[in-house]
Amino acid sequence: MFKINKERLLAHLFALGKTGLDAEGQRTRACASDTEKEGRDLVSGWMREAGLKVVVDRIGNIHGIWETPENQGQKPLMLGSHIDTVINAGQYDGCYGVLAALEIIQSLREAGAATARPLVVTAWTNEEGIRYSPDMMGSLVYAGGMKCDDALATVGVDGTVLGEELRRIGYAGTVEPGFLKPYAFVELHIEQGPIMDAEGYAIGAVEDLQGISWQKITIEGVQNHAGTTPTSYRIDAGVAAAKVITYMRQRCLLPGSRTVCTTGCIAFEPNAINVIPSKAVFTVDVRNPNEEKLREEEKALADYLAELEKTDKVKITTERLSRFEPVLFDEGIVTLVEKYAKKRGLRCRRMTSGAGQDAQMLARICPTAMIFVPSVNGISHNPREFTKEEDLLAGAEVFLDVVVEMSEAK
Amino acid sequence: MFKINKERLLAHLFALGKTGLDAEGQRTRACASDTEKEGRDLVSGWMREAGLKVVVDRIGNIHGIWETPENQGQKPLMLGSHIDTVINAGQYDGCYGVLAALEIIQSLREAGAATARPLVVTAWTNEEGIRYSPDMMGSLVYAGGMKCDDALATVGVDGTVLGEELRRIGYAGTVEPGFLKPYAFVELHIEQGPIMDAEGYAIGAVEDLQGISWQKITIEGVQNHAGTTPTSYRIDAGVAAAKVITYMRQRCLLPGSRTVCTTGCIAFEPNAINVIPSKAVFTVDVRNPNEEKLREEEKALADYLAELEKTDKVKITTERLSRFEPVLFDEGIVTLVEKYAKKRGLRCRRMTSGAGQDAQMLARICPTAMIFVPSVNGISHNPREFTKEEDLLAGAEVFLDVVVEMSEAK
Repeated sequence: MFKINKERLLAHLFALGKTGLDAEGQRTRACASDTEKEGRDLVSGWMREAGLKVVVDRIGNIHGIWETPENQGQKPLMLGSHIDTVINAGQYDGCYGVLAALEIIQSLREAGAATARPLVVTAWTNEEGIRYSPDMMGSLVYAGGMKCDDALATVGVDGTVLGEELRRIGYAGTVEPGFLKPYAFVELHIEQGPIMDAEGYAIGAVEDLQGISWQKITIEGVQNHAGTTPTSYRIDAGVAAAKVITYMRQRCLLPGSRTVCTTGCIAFEPNAINVIPSKAVFTVDVRNPNEEKLREEEKALADYLAELEKTDKVKITTERLSRFEPVLFDEGIVTLVEKYAKKRGLRCRRMTSGAGQDAQMLARICPTAMIFVPSVNGISHNPREFTKEEDLLAGAEVFLDVVVEMSEAK
Repeated sequence: MFKINKERLLAHLFALGKTGLDAEGQRTRACASDTEKEGRDLVSGWMREAGLKVVVDRIGNIHGIWETPENQGQKPLMLGSHIDTVINAGQYDGCYGVLAALEIIQSLREAGAATARPLVVTAWTNEEGIRYSPDMMGSLVYAGGMKCDDALATVGVDGTVLGEELRRIGYAGTVEPGFLKPYAFVELHIEQGPIMDAEGYAIGAVEDLQGISWQKITIEGVQNHAGTTPTSYRIDAGVAAAKVITYMRQRCLLPGSRTVCTTGCIAFEPNAINVIPSKAVFTVDVRNPNEEKLREEEKALADYLAELEKTDKVKITTERLSRFEPVLFDEGIVTLVEKYAKKRGLRCRRMTSGAGQDAQMLARICPTAMIFVPSVNGISHNPREFTKEEDLLAGAEVFLDVVVEMSEAK
């Protein structure tokens, strides 16, 4: 029976959490920044201490590789997540998955385990995407979804070029992304949502990842006097926008629906208290783990907008901002997660990842799944992000069990 | 049978419409500005040409007075409107009412009419309120609703002081506002709304003026991730705001309702596409010509907000921005308008003024009513504001008839 070193895992996690404080004292490790370099140096140092071979690929993904003469040449089992952060972040998102993977490999190596295939822990470049777009870039490039040279040429929100910044901080590797062909990929992550904490689950066996549909909707009405224009004469862009928002919420509340929908941005023109809005511009973010259902929602929205054009006499245009199909994870790995959670007496439920993850990119090239642990009150992307130590350790132990079985460690 | 000089009325109206073009070529006569001085000079010049005694009071209202030895000492019948404008205005709003009143008095005087009481045409100061607040200031001060010194001390949006600006343009009078005690007040005005044009009416007998209730509503929810937060866990300030907007529209559509409601301003925080809004701030402008009904709407809104706090778990605060009770005009004058419209074969309907008017201030101190003529497509406060010449003349003729009867002109 293999074990992890719990104290070391927590010590690594909290030490990494103390790096990358910006001028305001906020934890912000934007991709390829000076603060993220601190985190990279720390993590790659720990990989070397653990006896792993550290390889940085051209897009800056850091791979800590443990292979033995016996398993050399076999496809590696890859594990990992990311260590870049959003602005004013918590200390768990991403880091937990990288450091738990490191801990598992280090523990197995120290215990003299023999594995049927190499084990790799990877810290993927630019998962959050706050400086360079798109997010999940390192894993996307690794999986062949974006050309490495295009990614390196990306200009950031601060005018910098990713490739130059990676060189500047010493993390521009020479190895081509994709150089290791994974046998499978498993990612451990905090939930970043409220479900497991509210419902008392310790382990989430993540079976899929929501598809995302982003649209910008522009409704044009007729600007008019708020006092002299009777209701029946109004062509009110603002009321039409409000109807769309309430309609989409009603759809989310239909029995059995797994859709979530958010209008996060809105603006009226001319935005004057006594003038009927001539224009309303707002965003609609719709997500569903099933592609067919997501298309149904998109169609329902389009049908409703077409109906509104008739009933409310407004003119509506839509612009697609983003679209990702849902990802279905590997059933075999999901079942393993459930099996070992049960074995350890941990309450486990199947989960959908509401957020984007590096695992969704790896799922393009190998069997992939994720393990979730609860986030207290569902808070994430915030310094108040918190997961209890017992949950962090339980997640790492189930992760260990899964890795042991998948690598046939003895 | 008295007549007006139709050509002169139109010539005056179009000449006044050509004054006050600003640097961009837009017609903008803000109260006490250089461009408004042009208009004041023109109108007071025409008053003198017509043989009227021109008196400017301390708040800058210009009164053109026609009294005879026979009717001196009687309470005057006052007529008029305003000649200041909004930014980039049309040429009818206000000006039509002043110049038609001038035309009627001039025509009666030229015809050698004898009237039982003096006739006065007044151009009220700062009706639009775009530079100095509140709007309808000149008539408000005249009716005793605001101290003249307070009004003169008003600081404008451009940092100027009204009293100083009136002095600078030569329209700071020495006579106290209210120096003439009106027998009655009648105001002719364009509708500024779509009803009469759409329904084919030439004359509106304005029997009342809507009450106005303005509130700013702040809804606080909980900021959360748009992907990882299931619908049942959301406390979405944006959805709650959308519900309020649609609810108020539904109330306006209840059978028999005369309420109009407008949400002209809205903002979400943090206003990010993938973040559930933590805050929604928006305005609600509710109007109804009946005070009891207006209070019912305010109560319905308050009840709905209280219900939302329970059902949606949001926190709601409201701030009153403005509140005016409805004004009921003088039934005797309204009946006269109907009588003379009918006599001239003009389609007439009773109307509610949706906009604020100088007449609502005069109604505090004497019997008052208004006459409306149609605005093509209801457009106003816009260079495309338009009323057909035949409608302008028909309105002025009914106005003449009413003035003749009320002044007992012979």
